[in-house]
Amino acid sequence: MRTSIATVCLSGTLDEKLVAAQAAGFDGVEIFEPDLVASPRSPEEIRARADELGLTLDLYQPFRDFEGVGPELLERNLRRAAAKFGLMNRLGIDTILLCSNVATARSGDEQLAAAQLRQLGDLAQGFGVRVAYEALAWGRFVDSYETAARIVRIADHPAIGLCLDSFHILSKGHSPEAIETIPAEKIFFVQMADAPLLTMDVLSWSRHHRVFPGEGGFDLGAFMAHLIRTGYDGPVSLEIFNDTFRQTDALATAIDGRRSLRWLEHEAAAALGSGAGGGAARMRTSWLPGVASPADVNYVELRTTELPELRRLLGQLGFRSHGAHRSKAVELWSQGAARVVLGAPDTDHRQPTVAGIGFSVSDPATAVRRAEDLFAPDVPRQEGAGEEPLVGVRTPDGSEVFFGADGGGEPRWVGEFGRPSDPDAGLIERVDHINLAQPWQHFDAAVLFFLSVLDLHAEASVEVAAPVGLVRSQVLRSADGIVRIALNLVPSGARDDAILPQHIAFASSDVLALARAARDRGFAPLDIPANYYDDIEARYLIEPGLLADLRELNVMYDRDDSGEFLHFYTQPVGTVFLEVVERREGYAGYGALNAPVRLAAQYQHRRAAREEAAR
Amino acid sequence: MRTSIATVCLSGTLDEKLVAAQAAGFDGVEIFEPDLVASPRSPEEIRARADELGLTLDLYQPFRDFEGVGPELLERNLRRAAAKFGLMNRLGIDTILLCSNVATARSGDEQLAAAQLRQLGDLAQGFGVRVAYEALAWGRFVDSYETAARIVRIADHPAIGLCLDSFHILSKGHSPEAIETIPAEKIFFVQMADAPLLTMDVLSWSRHHRVFPGEGGFDLGAFMAHLIRTGYDGPVSLEIFNDTFRQTDALATAIDGRRSLRWLEHEAAAALGSGAGGGAARMRTSWLPGVASPADVNYVELRTTELPELRRLLGQLGFRSHGAHRSKAVELWSQGAARVVLGAPDTDHRQPTVAGIGFSVSDPATAVRRAEDLFAPDVPRQEGAGEEPLVGVRTPDGSEVFFGADGGGEPRWVGEFGRPSDPDAGLIERVDHINLAQPWQHFDAAVLFFLSVLDLHAEASVEVAAPVGLVRSQVLRSADGIVRIALNLVPSGARDDAILPQHIAFASSDVLALARAARDRGFAPLDIPANYYDDIEARYLIEPGLLADLRELNVMYDRDDSGEFLHFYTQPVGTVFLEVVERREGYAGYGALNAPVRLAAQYQHRRAAREEAAR
Repeated sequence: MRTSIATVCLSGTLDEKLVAAQAAGFDGVEIFEPDLVASPRSPEEIRARADELGLTLDLYQPFRDFEGVGPELLERNLRRAAAKFGLMNRLGIDTILLCSNVATARSGDEQLAAAQLRQLGDLAQGFGVRVAYEALAWGRFVDSYETAARIVRIADHPAIGLCLDSFHILSKGHSPEAIETIPAEKIFFVQMADAPLLTMDVLSWSRHHRVFPGEGGFDLGAFMAHLIRTGYDGPVSLEIFNDTFRQTDALATAIDGRRSLRWLEHEAAAALGSGAGGGAARMRTSWLPGVASPADVNYVELRTTELPELRRLLGQLGFRSHGAHRSKAVELWSQGAARVVLGAPDTDHRQPTVAGIGFSVSDPATAVRRAEDLFAPDVPRQEGAGEEPLVGVRTPDGSEVFFGADGGGEPRWVGEFGRPSDPDAGLIERVDHINLAQPWQHFDAAVLFFLSVLDLHAEASVEVAAPVGLVRSQVLRSADGIVRIALNLVPSGARDDAILPQHIAFASSDVLALARAARDRGFAPLDIPANYYDDIEARYLIEPGLLADLRELNVMYDRDDSGEFLHFYTQPVGTVFLEVVERREGYAGYGALNAPVRLAAQYQHRRAAREEAAR
Repeated sequence: MRTSIATVCLSGTLDEKLVAAQAAGFDGVEIFEPDLVASPRSPEEIRARADELGLTLDLYQPFRDFEGVGPELLERNLRRAAAKFGLMNRLGIDTILLCSNVATARSGDEQLAAAQLRQLGDLAQGFGVRVAYEALAWGRFVDSYETAARIVRIADHPAIGLCLDSFHILSKGHSPEAIETIPAEKIFFVQMADAPLLTMDVLSWSRHHRVFPGEGGFDLGAFMAHLIRTGYDGPVSLEIFNDTFRQTDALATAIDGRRSLRWLEHEAAAALGSGAGGGAARMRTSWLPGVASPADVNYVELRTTELPELRRLLGQLGFRSHGAHRSKAVELWSQGAARVVLGAPDTDHRQPTVAGIGFSVSDPATAVRRAEDLFAPDVPRQEGAGEEPLVGVRTPDGSEVFFGADGGGEPRWVGEFGRPSDPDAGLIERVDHINLAQPWQHFDAAVLFFLSVLDLHAEASVEVAAPVGLVRSQVLRSADGIVRIALNLVPSGARDDAILPQHIAFASSDVLALARAARDRGFAPLDIPANYYDDIEARYLIEPGLLADLRELNVMYDRDDSGEFLHFYTQPVGTVFLEVVERREGYAGYGALNAPVRLAAQYQHRRAAREEAAR
């Protein structure tokens, strides 16, 4: 599959965009006209630079408001087109995107539009270029690809074909099935864009909220399957207008985009099924190396300057220390199958506090190959002689993901630490979920990363009010619910890292017993206001004994259709905190109703600590 | 008019919200339940704190999903209500907001809903409280205030009345006229919210995009007039769910909100006309001190560390120096009626580079009274003996606005500087517009400030692509177009101040002659790429001689239905740059199509300067 990206997707100057597209592994780019107009480089210089980088210039775009006009305006439009065709010759680009007329068309007569396109085709042929006609979702008369395809068929000119854009088709709810009726040689170009399923005017939706394939709600695998069955094998290009991408480092965005196309290729292969491409299919798509979702969270690695505080907390929660690693400057704490690796932060690299997550998988080598195939950068890690190899990749926020063999029972690498002196307290069983705060620039990229690399499924996202803004939260989980990663989008105004800490939630079979045992060891939980307990008392019929326990132990409560949820929090330590949760009778949520109370309590705690420090 | 604000409008803890509401001058607040639930203070403590601050607690909100349910759920809902009524007694709040049922209603039978509300009313009476029933725009069966009013009429219970929310009424396109048919004693509460006119699902619109009255597109003056004619004289309260407010300093938001209610009162008085309140009107509303829009921009004050560079630029553009002020550490440059006051930045205060704007008004004392009436803070300024008094106020971004007497001709304060030695070059006539980059947190507040304080009108806002993100731009202008302030919203990701500089545009009758004269004085304009001129050549039929001049002098070009626009830019100096514009035959715009090219050129310029510095 040949891959391309429109320069409008990336921030910076045209030069910077070309470098980013090449570095991320794209085959080519679409030149977005305003990027060219604003560039101090001549068209010839841009062409030479793309050559040097090994990038093809696949499309010049957009040309607007051509067809369906009166004769005088047609004359002017042809003059305008001739200037752009000349420019394309200088750039060495052979295809231009023509958007269906939104502003100046006076007639929806398809014969008239086709006749005018034929004139444009004659002009284009003189320059050796061709025109890809695209129905915009908000075109005045032409707003569906089937209409555009009809006009192209009537025009019947070798230099006039179609551009198909998944957003313009799927945003209107049009079925992409009829793509299969279009002859492949009439599909001049294909643009892929995803989007969250919003109910809003389609122009604003398109201009601000497009995302890369896999990051939104459209079924693009099925779309691609229809396309591939036509026999199309031209570029598959990303054209994403997105407010965040415009503000984000161009290379990070480009890598995210390149990953999305690799994921799309996999999804298309899945949608096509084995050999279902039929005789026409010429585009080669390939599956990613097949992996199952991880069997469990093998360990979580925390890097923090506040080691004594965290050791104390873990001890109070009943974790036992295995001491230091035999060759690395980290230590291990465990309880049941929950393992926490603790270490000081790297000096050369600004890590998130949850610096790494180890997953147990059936085949670590294949899991890494899949991640690499999805453009995830390797993490180099040195093993001592006889140590268990751990292979890993880096996520968009700079944290690391490691894959270890799922041997059932205790992983072998645990033996590289000392033997714990204490017996297992037995009240914590494993990691329930991990909550990763994501900078707003990388949120969509992080969702796609975990989804595609670990083969997780995205739950519906929720919004939670914090004292400093709304937090968007998106859970990615394995089908069996054992692996759950919650990604939280930090509000853009929240400049203070501590505002939205990362956290690990451990699963317990008896949160109340654990809270009591911890209290006996000197544990002070995050304080939950009395008003909260008055509120849940009004909201639910809670057995008075249980309510008294909750109040006494600062344990929070939630309920869904299947069961109950009991959970408590530690006070924050730097930018991390811990949670213990108990899911009764298959409760499936995360206590989202309680999150604002927890966030406010943490805000109060931070404020009090600052006032204390100022005294 | 009694004013109130819902705590959900403000960021931080409940304590912080109360302090901000009081400091901004509100009479009371609505307690938003999640703020109470998350507060460590008991209801009695909150009540005492509000008393101490002199704030009334006007409403407890929201109570949800009560009516239209089956008997079993009704029982549970009444139990839930009793708990909240008890809580209200502890808080000393006598009114609760009941939203129309969105989730659990099984029937839209108005008789049933009314009978259930009657039961609720009996319960409320026992606690000495009352229930204000509000139709949510997305209520399952009750989604219009006329339906809610009918149900309340049928219920016919002294403890059951209505809450009217302008957003829920106007977002659905419902006419507010029928408000006048509701008896005043049945209107228990009124919430005012504005919103930009977006086409999107009403729930998301309401949850994320509400703004304070005057900052959106609804006609709230007319809405208020209908309300006042009923005889209602209870609190008028702000209930604004807004993603930005949640992240912004609570006091800044509260002042913005208080200003919006003062503005609304003025607009209501205008909509009522003189005495048109009729016999029923009991609410006192008052006009703001009447002012006309400023006659012109008297001066612009720039505060910068780069004085030598700016002096050189002004000299090259033909400005003449008047030397230093007789008592203050500033200097004056002028050409025609364009005056620039230059000085070093304050040391104690982080000012924007455009630190002040002086306006000529017919009655400076009244202009300041109006600004103060709109909660704009005074600017203390010392005058020497015999110096012209300048009175001013501070804008939301910390810059200053001064009012001077419009005497026609040169203002008297000019004599407080020296006499210029050079004659007037005569090619610049006055300030055309001033472009103020606004931090995203203060953008809406800045729009309301300029609109209300200076009596300017808002033009439609536009979005412009910069290499670092989309920039929203909103022009506020006087009816005669002499005073024009463009507010630009800096993308939230743009941490670097230099990314979006402030600028002053001067009006010239002959931009080409001025550009030539400046060049002869050594001026180097902002470089405009050759590709830009190729593009406008393709876009417009431009006379070849003119096009050659534009290319040669780096002058940009635009055209609208009435005329042509020629303009050029200086290179940026720190966080400011200058522009010279020529409007031919009534061109009304600002060259928005050229802005991305200019922004990219500035980005390139900054990048080159950084690389130069690094060498």
